[in-house]
Amino acid sequence: MPDKIYRINMTDLKVTNEEVPEQWKGLGGRGLTSTIVAQEVKPTCHPLGKYNKLIIAPGLLTGTAAVNSGRLSAGAKSPLTGTIKESNAGGTAAQFFARLGIKALIIEGLPQKDTFYSLHVDKSGVTIQEDTEFAGKGNYEVMQMVQKKYGEKIGILSIGPAGEMRMAAANISVKDPDGTIRSLGRGGLGAVMGSKKIKFITIDDTDGPGVQIADPEKFKTASRTFAKGVIAHPVSGESLKLYGTDVLVNILNEAGGLPTENFRYGQFPGHEKISGETVYETILSRKGNPSHICHRGCVIRCSQVYNDKNGNYVTSGFEYETIWGFGANCNIDDLDIIAEADHVMDDVGVDSIETGVAMGVAMEAGIIPFGDGAGVLRLLKEIGTGTPLGRILGSGAEGVGKTYGITRVPVVKGQGLSAYDPRSIKGMGITYATSTMGSDHTAGYCVPVNILNVGGFVDPLKKEGQVELSRRLQIGTALLDSTGLCLFVAFSVLDNLDLFQAMMDMINAKYGLSMTIDNGRALGRKILRTEHEFNLAAGFTNKDDRLPEFFEEPVPPHNAVWDFTDEEIDSFWNF
Amino acid sequence: MPDKIYRINMTDLKVTNEEVPEQWKGLGGRGLTSTIVAQEVKPTCHPLGKYNKLIIAPGLLTGTAAVNSGRLSAGAKSPLTGTIKESNAGGTAAQFFARLGIKALIIEGLPQKDTFYSLHVDKSGVTIQEDTEFAGKGNYEVMQMVQKKYGEKIGILSIGPAGEMRMAAANISVKDPDGTIRSLGRGGLGAVMGSKKIKFITIDDTDGPGVQIADPEKFKTASRTFAKGVIAHPVSGESLKLYGTDVLVNILNEAGGLPTENFRYGQFPGHEKISGETVYETILSRKGNPSHICHRGCVIRCSQVYNDKNGNYVTSGFEYETIWGFGANCNIDDLDIIAEADHVMDDVGVDSIETGVAMGVAMEAGIIPFGDGAGVLRLLKEIGTGTPLGRILGSGAEGVGKTYGITRVPVVKGQGLSAYDPRSIKGMGITYATSTMGSDHTAGYCVPVNILNVGGFVDPLKKEGQVELSRRLQIGTALLDSTGLCLFVAFSVLDNLDLFQAMMDMINAKYGLSMTIDNGRALGRKILRTEHEFNLAAGFTNKDDRLPEFFEEPVPPHNAVWDFTDEEIDSFWNF
Repeated sequence: MPDKIYRINMTDLKVTNEEVPEQWKGLGGRGLTSTIVAQEVKPTCHPLGKYNKLIIAPGLLTGTAAVNSGRLSAGAKSPLTGTIKESNAGGTAAQFFARLGIKALIIEGLPQKDTFYSLHVDKSGVTIQEDTEFAGKGNYEVMQMVQKKYGEKIGILSIGPAGEMRMAAANISVKDPDGTIRSLGRGGLGAVMGSKKIKFITIDDTDGPGVQIADPEKFKTASRTFAKGVIAHPVSGESLKLYGTDVLVNILNEAGGLPTENFRYGQFPGHEKISGETVYETILSRKGNPSHICHRGCVIRCSQVYNDKNGNYVTSGFEYETIWGFGANCNIDDLDIIAEADHVMDDVGVDSIETGVAMGVAMEAGIIPFGDGAGVLRLLKEIGTGTPLGRILGSGAEGVGKTYGITRVPVVKGQGLSAYDPRSIKGMGITYATSTMGSDHTAGYCVPVNILNVGGFVDPLKKEGQVELSRRLQIGTALLDSTGLCLFVAFSVLDNLDLFQAMMDMINAKYGLSMTIDNGRALGRKILRTEHEFNLAAGFTNKDDRLPEFFEEPVPPHNAVWDFTDEEIDSFWNF
Repeated sequence: MPDKIYRINMTDLKVTNEEVPEQWKGLGGRGLTSTIVAQEVKPTCHPLGKYNKLIIAPGLLTGTAAVNSGRLSAGAKSPLTGTIKESNAGGTAAQFFARLGIKALIIEGLPQKDTFYSLHVDKSGVTIQEDTEFAGKGNYEVMQMVQKKYGEKIGILSIGPAGEMRMAAANISVKDPDGTIRSLGRGGLGAVMGSKKIKFITIDDTDGPGVQIADPEKFKTASRTFAKGVIAHPVSGESLKLYGTDVLVNILNEAGGLPTENFRYGQFPGHEKISGETVYETILSRKGNPSHICHRGCVIRCSQVYNDKNGNYVTSGFEYETIWGFGANCNIDDLDIIAEADHVMDDVGVDSIETGVAMGVAMEAGIIPFGDGAGVLRLLKEIGTGTPLGRILGSGAEGVGKTYGITRVPVVKGQGLSAYDPRSIKGMGITYATSTMGSDHTAGYCVPVNILNVGGFVDPLKKEGQVELSRRLQIGTALLDSTGLCLFVAFSVLDNLDLFQAMMDMINAKYGLSMTIDNGRALGRKILRTEHEFNLAAGFTNKDDRLPEFFEEPVPPHNAVWDFTDEEIDSFWNF
């Protein structure tokens, strides 16, 4: 049975089921969401208006036995950045979509009635229900209630109060195998779902057609090679499993690139207290789980379950970026407060990176002082109740900066920077500046090469080679984000031609194709160009590919400054 | 004695006094502020950062006996729009600057110390004082206290709490001849002054060199012709004197172009209660002043003094745009509430157009219901105290819309539309879309030709001729805004070649030049192009020359829609 596309029109509440057009057949994940957005969404439209569409798509390899291939992509024009946007996450939904033979959901239009709806996806298609029972509730409660009502086996996507209130930092939550929460975090896609008045989506793959593999033997061979390579790599096979992504705190602090106090310093005196090592020990001492998966088939296991002092669950998927955003960035060295903040954000439904950066700007504005953990928790709860201050914070870092007349606002194209100072890790600066998504470290993650000496080395404090590095990684990532594979396979794949070929061979074996590495890179370039052209048509120019003015200030300890010329940055697009 | 430029560096608190460069000699007002901003301000800089500059300049004819020539221009990169910005107002300051032989103040840099300052301008130059006594106070109190301290004769520019808090809708207040308040309203220039920590500026022209006229006889002849023409015109000589600008309420309502309930309808059932005729009768019955000047030499007298029921002063310069913004736009038909709102905004220091549009969006968001006059007054006071909600409103209509996830937000380039529906008065739509200042009715005021049959007629409901009309008016206005003449002379001047020539002859007589009407229009075109080039260099594109999506909805009573193609709008720049 060939894959299907379901088109869900929220204006007349009708669902149609379409064959996959020839030109979309070789696409999945980000490649597919970005292509559909570029073809069907008017670039200048209002992101919360009737012309925007929310596209949800599993990756090309999702649902197969390929390790770490269970990522789900969502795409739209972003209410946070105004650019094209793709965000991806683990959880169970992607594999369920794939096993139902669903290539993508295209959700369009705006309801005429002021109410909330739910979508239900199963083997017979998609149904829309009016569903006000869950409106106003946090994601944790929604996940529980929906599982109780529709069964524990189903996949769930939901939005919290922030999404319902169409806040630009709102995310979409995805149920993971343990019923806790992963996030389609960046770019405010939860607000797009909220504008379409969809509180949650269930996905039930019972009796679905399953995933077809054109050449199962070839697939098996390639997927074994691939899995071995990912497991054998010291980063994806060891460090991430042990300490999670937060292993980076001490490394970045040592490198002088851990943004501290709203990007004022590059080292945080309290770094030990929030390090991956400390997270690990704390989790063990409280009988949490230091090594957890976000989707079936994950061999990296960077997630974890963090408990409080009494051994009760606080949060899962306690990431470096979140710990940085509320830790070093806000001068808070208390892991329990940061974990509680993470829980509140998952429940309210806001991106923890954007909100961490927004909180740093709020501290810059004097709303609460740097280091005020109790204040942070109070303000995060205000996001969920939609007070005026909560609304300001929920609109992201740029919104806080504009509302309070602040110039020290670390954003590019309206999206907050993340946990790597662009002055002392210059490759990341190029990625922040040029990413089609607004500032996004995952778009071209230069830290391995700049800091870890993985996949080569480019001196993080020098400009030489950074544009080329970011370009190569952004192209590779555009491809990777289309496969459904977790970005962390990049540590081993992008610089190992055998593994890269194994990845292409898994795609070839599944679809009966014969793509080379060059074909894969060409696809990555095509996706990036499609996204860039959308942004240009939306009114963006090279003037938007710039870091904020304050990065001309030197950052200790290296006293590094952001010193790329406009021409150097713009040369990124010469490919 | 040749004119001077004073450069005030707020970083090291030093003032230098410069000769006027040859290329700036033929410029004044907007032509000068825009030229200096374009030459000296980095287009991509942060408007509240150290690279922005605040330029203050009287017009070319300011200080002479030319009627209605006392306008003061201020310019900068706008924190509201991100574009170049010029705003002008009456009051006493412009003529004082001119009589001191001051061509412009260029205020640059940011203070290193967290305190407030005042500037004092007199015949010996400009001095900077640290001055915290007035910080936090409203403009009315500041005006009183400063006059008490420095004398009643001086000119004053000041910012209210909104400017101190760097809100994007903050204006700069200008003392008028009666000690009440005029406003350099649009574009948030008060926030730029606030970022430079200047609470107020005094201007004392005692023993100044005065204004030199190269050919006094020629000037006298030209200025007589000019004055006669302005006085003889039915709009500038009669209607405006009698009913003020609010004469337009009934006219626009009749035309179906009075935006009502956040641009949902084109007619307001309560229009009679807020009309110019009602304002006039109310003022007379309360012993106010229906016909008042904003600067010496005004023969139009469109301003007025509006008293409360007990005959006590409430506000002066009670304008159509303000009465529309809080009246029809917010469904409030109570003049006393709108007058009180005007008073609060003057005191707090926010643009009454931007804030009226922001209030309509706040009502759209459900913060208070449409028609809630008491709610409006409560919220305006919150702007002054800087509560989170006050901050949101003080950031302008776009900020309210973004913070509350609203799509019905009538702005172009971040600035609120004004009191003319662009669908049913299409010339105004072209001006809103293309103005270099963000949406600004004064940039190319098509109402006389579209609605009043003054200076020709172009059918307001048809597209034909509107681009050409707006272009002609925007070019003429760029010139007019450079002369220091009030925009309301445009009713008589721009379509009467004898008066246009008389205006040019006044300039010629003052400066010893021999400019023709064609030279004047060429100057207008040059100013517009300079501004447009600044905006392009700041990252704006033709995609920003667009009205919001919701204007595709038909507006009653004509069910007119915004139907210009992109190509038609973009043809504006073909000159």
